[in-house]
Amino acid sequence: MKSLAWENKALTLLDQTKLPNEMIYLHCTDWREVAEAIKMLRVRGAPAIGVAAAYALVLAAREAGQHGIDFAEQMNFFKHFAAELKKARPTAINLAWAIERIEALISTTDRDFVTFIDRIEAEAIAIEEEDKVLNKAIAAQGAAELGKSGKKMRILTHCNAGALATAGMGTALGVVRALAAQHLVAMVYADETRPLLQGARLTTFELMADNIPVTLLTDNMAAYAMQQGLIDVVIVGADRITTEGDVANKIGTYGLSILAKAHNIPFYVAAPYSTFDFTLEKGTDIPIEMRDPNEVRSLYGISIAPTQVPVLNPAFDVTPHEYITGIITEKGVLKAPYNQSITILQKSVEG
Amino acid sequence: MKSLAWENKALTLLDQTKLPNEMIYLHCTDWREVAEAIKMLRVRGAPAIGVAAAYALVLAAREAGQHGIDFAEQMNFFKHFAAELKKARPTAINLAWAIERIEALISTTDRDFVTFIDRIEAEAIAIEEEDKVLNKAIAAQGAAELGKSGKKMRILTHCNAGALATAGMGTALGVVRALAAQHLVAMVYADETRPLLQGARLTTFELMADNIPVTLLTDNMAAYAMQQGLIDVVIVGADRITTEGDVANKIGTYGLSILAKAHNIPFYVAAPYSTFDFTLEKGTDIPIEMRDPNEVRSLYGISIAPTQVPVLNPAFDVTPHEYITGIITEKGVLKAPYNQSITILQKSVEG
Repeated sequence: MKSLAWENKALTLLDQTKLPNEMIYLHCTDWREVAEAIKMLRVRGAPAIGVAAAYALVLAAREAGQHGIDFAEQMNFFKHFAAELKKARPTAINLAWAIERIEALISTTDRDFVTFIDRIEAEAIAIEEEDKVLNKAIAAQGAAELGKSGKKMRILTHCNAGALATAGMGTALGVVRALAAQHLVAMVYADETRPLLQGARLTTFELMADNIPVTLLTDNMAAYAMQQGLIDVVIVGADRITTEGDVANKIGTYGLSILAKAHNIPFYVAAPYSTFDFTLEKGTDIPIEMRDPNEVRSLYGISIAPTQVPVLNPAFDVTPHEYITGIITEKGVLKAPYNQSITILQKSVEG
Repeated sequence: MKSLAWENKALTLLDQTKLPNEMIYLHCTDWREVAEAIKMLRVRGAPAIGVAAAYALVLAAREAGQHGIDFAEQMNFFKHFAAELKKARPTAINLAWAIERIEALISTTDRDFVTFIDRIEAEAIAIEEEDKVLNKAIAAQGAAELGKSGKKMRILTHCNAGALATAGMGTALGVVRALAAQHLVAMVYADETRPLLQGARLTTFELMADNIPVTLLTDNMAAYAMQQGLIDVVIVGADRITTEGDVANKIGTYGLSILAKAHNIPFYVAAPYSTFDFTLEKGTDIPIEMRDPNEVRSLYGISIAPTQVPVLNPAFDVTPHEYITGIITEKGVLKAPYNQSITILQKSVEG
C-alpha cells in the first residue's frame, strides 16, 4: 500500500478521505493541489506530509521558474510558494522540516534556476527514500524492544501511523509489521479515531491487506478493552516531539496514555528523528490545529448533530513525557529521562 | 421534550434514532413494537426503558386477555410476553425492575383479567409519574451538592441522561437543568458518544432546546478538554449500580472516570433508587450487552470501515466505585464507603 508516488514529474496521491470505500488517485501537477490535499487530509500522517511537501516544492519551483523573469524573481516566487505551503497544517513538524530542508538548497552560489529545480527533485526523492529506510529501522528497533519476551502480543493503536502515513511501512504500524513477521502479533486493536476515522478507515484496511489480525473499536472502548485485559501494549505515532519528550499526536492519544498508565500497560511512541522539534522544550508550546466544526457535526455530508451546535475540534493533543514508556526512533528506543536521551540522540545525529 | 406518552391506550414513542434530523413518533399498539423499539434504541435511557416496558405490559396484557380462553391461560400468555420483553436489553436494571414491579401485581386473589389489565395500566402510569418526581428530586439533590460554591460551572457529560432518557427532566441533565435555573452553568461539554451518538444527537438537541450552553466534542477529546482546564465536574447517568457502588453506564464512562481522577475533577453519577441492583456486589457481575458490529462499521447506511473487519462493540462498561465522587439519588448524595451508604439507602427505602 503506497500513500504517494512521484512519477513523470507529477505527484500521485492516494485520496485517503475516500478509503476504504474507494481507491481514488489524485494526479497533482500544481503545488496548490498538494497543499489542498494536505489541508483536507487526502494525504496525512506526519512523515507522508513531509514527503508530499517536498515534491510539492518541485512543482512550485517549476512554476516559479516559468513566472519569474530572472533568477531573483524566480526565487522570490519560490520562497513565497514555500511559505504558503508551510501553512497547510501547523502541528506536524515534518511539514516545516521537509520545506526547510529543501529551502536549505537555496543558499548556494548557484544562479541557474533549472539546476535548482533538479536539485530540489533529487532532494525530494532522497527524503522519500530516507523515509522508507527510517521506517524499516524504526520497525526493527521497536520489534527488538517489544519482541524480547517472545510472547504473542495484543497491541492497541490510535489513528494511522502506517504505510498510509509515511512513504514506507509505517512507524507504529511498521513496528507491528516487524512483530507480525516474527509471529508475535495476536491482535491489533484499532481505535476508530474520531472525527476523521483514520483508524476505522485506514489502519484496519492496511492491516487486513497484510493479513495481520485487527479488531476495530470506538475510541471510548479503549478503557474497557484495557480493563478486560485485552491489551498488552499501546503503540502510536507522533506529529511533533519536544526536547523534554512531550509528544503531539492525533487527538485522543493523551487520554489513551492516561488509561494505559492506570492499567499498567506500556505506552510507546514510534517516530523518526525528523519528528523532534529541538526549538521547543515543553508540549504546551506546540501549536494545536483547530479544525472545522463540521468535521464533528457531519459525516459524509450527513448531519449527526444539530447543525448550529458549537464544537471543540482540536486535531491533536499533547502527551506529557511522564506517560511514555519509550520513544522508538530509527537510532534506538529512548527512555526517561527524556531530556537526556533526546540530547544524546541529537548529538549523535548532528554531532 | 418528551421521550414517550401514554395516550388512548397506546404508547407513543419519539424515535430517538432519527434525532436531531427528524421528529418521528411511533404509535405502538403491540408490545412487540415496544420491545423492538427498546432493542433498536428508538427509546433508550434506563429510566425511559423502564417506563416504556411498563406500558408495553399493558399492551401485552390486553393481547393475553384476547388470546386466552380462561384466566389461567391469559396469565400464561402474559407471563410469556413479559419474559420475552425482559430480554430486550440485558444491562439496564430498570427494564427488569419495571417488569418485576408489574408482575408483582399478579400475586393476588384476583381472578378477573380485565381488572388485572386496569391495575397494570394504573401501575405503569404510577411508574411514569414517579419517574418525573424522582428526576426533580435528583436534580434538587445534585444542584444542592454541586451548587454550594455559587460559582458557574463547566460540566462534562457522556451519552444522554436527559429528558429523552427518562419520563421527566432527566437524571444527569436534570441536575444540569436545576443548576442552569440557578444560573450556575457556564457550559455543558457533551461527548458525542460513539457508536450511536446519543451525545451528539440527543444531549446537544435537548440542551439547545432549553437554551443551556452546550459544546459538542468527540469522546477522545475529553482528556484534552480536561488538560486545558475546561472541565469543573463530570456528571453521568447509570444503567445499573451494585451494592458496592460500581456503576454500569454507557461505554466510555469508565475511561472518563479515570481521566477525571487523573485531572482531579469530581466525577458524579446521577440515578434513581431503581437503578440499584441489590443482588449484585461487584460490577464485574453485571452482564454487558454486546451489540451488532455494524453499529461501528457503518453510520446511516454508509460504510466507515472495511465491511468484514472484526469489531468490539460493548454497549456499556463498569466504573469501579473508587473513581466515583458521589452518586446523586432522589434520597440524597451517596459517598464512599459506598457499601455502607448504599445499605443505609436501601434500609431507608425498604425498611
